[in-house]
Amino acid sequence: MNEYPKSAMSTPTSDTLESQVEDLSGAAALDADRYQKKMQRRKEVQDQRLAQRDVEKGLIIVNTGNGKGKTTAALGMVLRSLGHGYRVAIVQFIKGAWEPAEKAVFDRWPEQIEFLAMGEGFTWETQDRDRDIAKAREAWEKGLEFIRNPEFKLVLLDEVNVALKLGYLQADEILAGLDDKPADSHVILTGRGAPAELIERADLVTEMTLVKHPFREQGVKAQPGIEF
Amino acid sequence: MNEYPKSAMSTPTSDTLESQVEDLSGAAALDADRYQKKMQRRKEVQDQRLAQRDVEKGLIIVNTGNGKGKTTAALGMVLRSLGHGYRVAIVQFIKGAWEPAEKAVFDRWPEQIEFLAMGEGFTWETQDRDRDIAKAREAWEKGLEFIRNPEFKLVLLDEVNVALKLGYLQADEILAGLDDKPADSHVILTGRGAPAELIERADLVTEMTLVKHPFREQGVKAQPGIEF
Repeated sequence: MNEYPKSAMSTPTSDTLESQVEDLSGAAALDADRYQKKMQRRKEVQDQRLAQRDVEKGLIIVNTGNGKGKTTAALGMVLRSLGHGYRVAIVQFIKGAWEPAEKAVFDRWPEQIEFLAMGEGFTWETQDRDRDIAKAREAWEKGLEFIRNPEFKLVLLDEVNVALKLGYLQADEILAGLDDKPADSHVILTGRGAPAELIERADLVTEMTLVKHPFREQGVKAQPGIEF
Repeated sequence: MNEYPKSAMSTPTSDTLESQVEDLSGAAALDADRYQKKMQRRKEVQDQRLAQRDVEKGLIIVNTGNGKGKTTAALGMVLRSLGHGYRVAIVQFIKGAWEPAEKAVFDRWPEQIEFLAMGEGFTWETQDRDRDIAKAREAWEKGLEFIRNPEFKLVLLDEVNVALKLGYLQADEILAGLDDKPADSHVILTGRGAPAELIERADLVTEMTLVKHPFREQGVKAQPGIEF
C-alpha cells in the first residue's frame, strides 16, 4: 500500500480509467505474455496522450441533470481544492442555510473558505416571488465578486441553474459575469435544467441521470451523510 | 444570511428541488397573488410527501457512467458523513495511491477515517495481470471487513466497478458481501460499467453522462482541485 502517487504524469483521471475499461475488457482472455505486450503498447499510447494534453486553464464546469450528485460532486472538488491549499468560495442560491454537517467540515478551513447561503429556502416556504428574486440577485452579486477575485481559485455557484430556470436570473448576465473570471480559476455551476447557452460556454459538462432512487421508490427519507 | 436550516423536516434534497423546477417553471407568468396561492398548495403537497417518507435505511449506492463525478460525488458524501461525526472507510481498487490533496483533507479526521489504496496503478503501468488480480482481491477482503464492521457508517469501494469489468472480481461475491452490511450503514460503489446485478440490487443509482470534456476536446490536462 502506497500513500503517494508514483509521479504527477501518471495521475489517474477518470478519463484514463475509462479508456482502460474500453480497451481491456477483452484482455481477460489473453495469456500472460500477450497480456503484457498489449499493456506495453497501451502504455505507449497513454503516455503520448498525456504528453499532448499540456494546456492549463481554469474551467467552467456545469453539473446538471435530474439525478443525484450535482452538488455532491461539486463538494468533492471543494474538498480537493482545500487539500491543495486553494481558497474556495461557495454561494448557495436556493437553500436558505448551510447543512450543519457541511458547515462543520468547512469550519476546519476558516482561512480558505467563504460560504454564503443567500436564499430563503424553497419558493413554497417563502411563497413570495419578489423576495426570492431579490435574494437570488443578491447571491449573484456576491458570486460575481468572488469570480472576479483572483484569490479564489474555485467558486461554486450552487443551484444557480434553478434560479435561472425559475427566471430569477438571466443566462446572459451569468455569461457576462463568467467573462470576468481570471484565466486560472474555476467556476462550478450546479442545478437541474442548465440553459443551453451555459452548456455551450462551459468546458466540462456532466449530466447526472437518475437510474434508481430510494426516496420515491421505497419511501426512504433523506439520510444524514448522504443527502445532507 | 442564515447558517442553519429552519428545521430538519425542510431539509432540501435535490429530489424536492427537482419537483420545484418541474412545477414552477410556469410560475414566472403568474401575478403575485396567484403565485402565492400556487406556492401554498405546493407546500401542502410537499409536506405530505415528506411525511410519507419515514423509512430510515442504510443505502447501497452506485455511481456509474462514462462521465465525470463518480468518485467526486462519493467524496462529497464522505465529507458530509465526516461532518456528522461518522466513521468512514475508503478502499481504492485501481489506483495505487491516494492523491496528496485528498489525503491532506482526510488527515484532519484521523479518528474518523480509514483509507487504503490497494491497487498498484493502471494495468498498463503494472503490465502484470496476476498481480493486479491479487491486489484487487486483497482490496475486496479489506472492503468486506469494513462493510461488516458496524462502526463504519459509510464504506466507499472506489472504482470497484472497474475491477469487476476487468474480471478481477466477480459480481456475485460483491453481492454476497453486501448481504453482510449492517442495516443502517451505507456502501458506495463507484466506477464505469457497473454490472446489471449490482444495479438491480442497489437502492440509489446515478449515471454520470459526459456532455462535454475539456481534456479530449481542448487538450487541457488534469487540473489540481478538479481532477485530483
